[in-house]
Amino acid sequence: MKILITGGAGFIGSNLVRTLHEGSLLSADELVVIDNLSLGRREFIADLIDDSRLFFYEQDLLDAESLHAVFDKHRPDLVWHLSANSDIGYGAKFTDWDLKQGTLATYNVLEAMRRVGTKKVVFASTSAIYGEATVLPTPEDYGPLFPISLYGASKLACEGLISSFCHNFGFQAWIYRFGNIVGKNGTHGALVDFIGKLKKSPNRLPVLGNGKQAKPYLHVSDCIEGMVFGFQHANEQVNYFNLACPGATSVTALAEAVVEAFGTDTQIEYSGGTRGWVGDVPQVRLDTSRMTSLGWQARYSSDQAAAKAVEELMEQMAPGV
Amino acid sequence: MKILITGGAGFIGSNLVRTLHEGSLLSADELVVIDNLSLGRREFIADLIDDSRLFFYEQDLLDAESLHAVFDKHRPDLVWHLSANSDIGYGAKFTDWDLKQGTLATYNVLEAMRRVGTKKVVFASTSAIYGEATVLPTPEDYGPLFPISLYGASKLACEGLISSFCHNFGFQAWIYRFGNIVGKNGTHGALVDFIGKLKKSPNRLPVLGNGKQAKPYLHVSDCIEGMVFGFQHANEQVNYFNLACPGATSVTALAEAVVEAFGTDTQIEYSGGTRGWVGDVPQVRLDTSRMTSLGWQARYSSDQAAAKAVEELMEQMAPGV
Repeated sequence: MKILITGGAGFIGSNLVRTLHEGSLLSADELVVIDNLSLGRREFIADLIDDSRLFFYEQDLLDAESLHAVFDKHRPDLVWHLSANSDIGYGAKFTDWDLKQGTLATYNVLEAMRRVGTKKVVFASTSAIYGEATVLPTPEDYGPLFPISLYGASKLACEGLISSFCHNFGFQAWIYRFGNIVGKNGTHGALVDFIGKLKKSPNRLPVLGNGKQAKPYLHVSDCIEGMVFGFQHANEQVNYFNLACPGATSVTALAEAVVEAFGTDTQIEYSGGTRGWVGDVPQVRLDTSRMTSLGWQARYSSDQAAAKAVEELMEQMAPGV
Repeated sequence: MKILITGGAGFIGSNLVRTLHEGSLLSADELVVIDNLSLGRREFIADLIDDSRLFFYEQDLLDAESLHAVFDKHRPDLVWHLSANSDIGYGAKFTDWDLKQGTLATYNVLEAMRRVGTKKVVFASTSAIYGEATVLPTPEDYGPLFPISLYGASKLACEGLISSFCHNFGFQAWIYRFGNIVGKNGTHGALVDFIGKLKKSPNRLPVLGNGKQAKPYLHVSDCIEGMVFGFQHANEQVNYFNLACPGATSVTALAEAVVEAFGTDTQIEYSGGTRGWVGDVPQVRLDTSRMTSLGWQARYSSDQAAAKAVEELMEQMAPGV
């Protein structure tokens, strides 16, 4: 099987590429990685790039012509589409950012697939499509879907594009709606932010919101295992799952874990308000029973995943502290 | 109040512009009409264009710079965004058509609003966002939302953009999910198609599908009254309603009504299959209880609306038959 991974040098992508390269969960004859390295980093997969089974393309999904050329050359059997803007707050400042990086890029990927007959796609969606759901934990069939961030709006648009390509062109899709994913090679999110801030200035840690925002944190290794498991065990035309662990971890707990890891005398300073930023959904709980029914559950709880990620990110970002 | 209407020379748009111009339901100090006349027709509103309160711009919503200029000049209080591709089948052939005419055009409208501080938007959405719903009649809170047409995907993307602009920039929205709308100035759909075909060749009427597809048909006068009523009586930040009548009319009933109006000896020939075309949802029933709770219901039943529309379209398209 030839697998093409978009965003394959990014946080989740680089972990996925490494796992697929090892072949323990799913074996691939050829791995084609596309990343524009705007958020991803070559170093995350640098040691794999020389492998004759791996083809790395540093290019942007918005360049449809170059994208089609890669598809023409490799004709993948499966696309793992992970590339996206991951900075939700940024989308509120530059209102076409998620539209381009999310919606248009995804259209380009689907159209590239259609042109060469690639029919299977795994897609990284988000719980942000639920907006401020009135049902917690939120099940996959929740409606209405009124995202409050342009990021969520873009992911919802992508899900719609995918489902319509499934119906019109015989695609098959595995859509995973993530809560927060954490772990090695993290490039964004609260933990990365906190560690970065403490490295610069260890005495104070500014935290957005009142710290009571709480979301499920899934370790990236669980995320990848879950995505592969669903791909192997669900066989509808459009397969869709919340991919998370039950429960949640508060922002305060994350901040305290990072402060403890630094071992410094740090004042945590909250900016106040229930939200971290405009478009932030302060309370996220995801109903994970569909994945459980399929036979999968996360190895790490939300708190355990966060603790493991703090350890891994400290090692990468602030070694020796 | 200054009202800007996109697609204001189109089917629903021209009827809306005429109603707003009369001022019986809602009075406007200024009407700004934008239409690229790709589906709309100048003749639908030609007699109004000379009015000093009405400003007509023949331009495309994809030309953001010209759009911004219109918004800079008129600074509307309310936008009635009706412009879209209305040919669902076309979107399956040209896969970027709905993306451009729907998603990108809507983004341009929202961004033009944001730039000048316009906060209120009425949006023409569609029951196609529900895809092939397993619950009939389908309520507004139905999930999951997996549209099967690129048209439905685009409208879902637009709803997400609108809800995120509401949250991020203080917009207020009235989203109406239509079934089929019929009546004077119709430019597309089964009735227009059937009348056009019989004008050309009165002895046979080719019909897509097996004729058993059945959907709710709402008369355009009811559509406009309902949209205005909801705008006046619902005051959430994101207001969303199915706008339809209860019940449904089959394609066979539509075909027979048109044949009867022509008074010809016509053979109705079905192409077969449960769907009219790829992306067609064969059975649509919409739960209209939210509009009913608000205090509004359609004047005409689905069958009555269809009969009235046949009469009106015959007068426009095949006068004297």
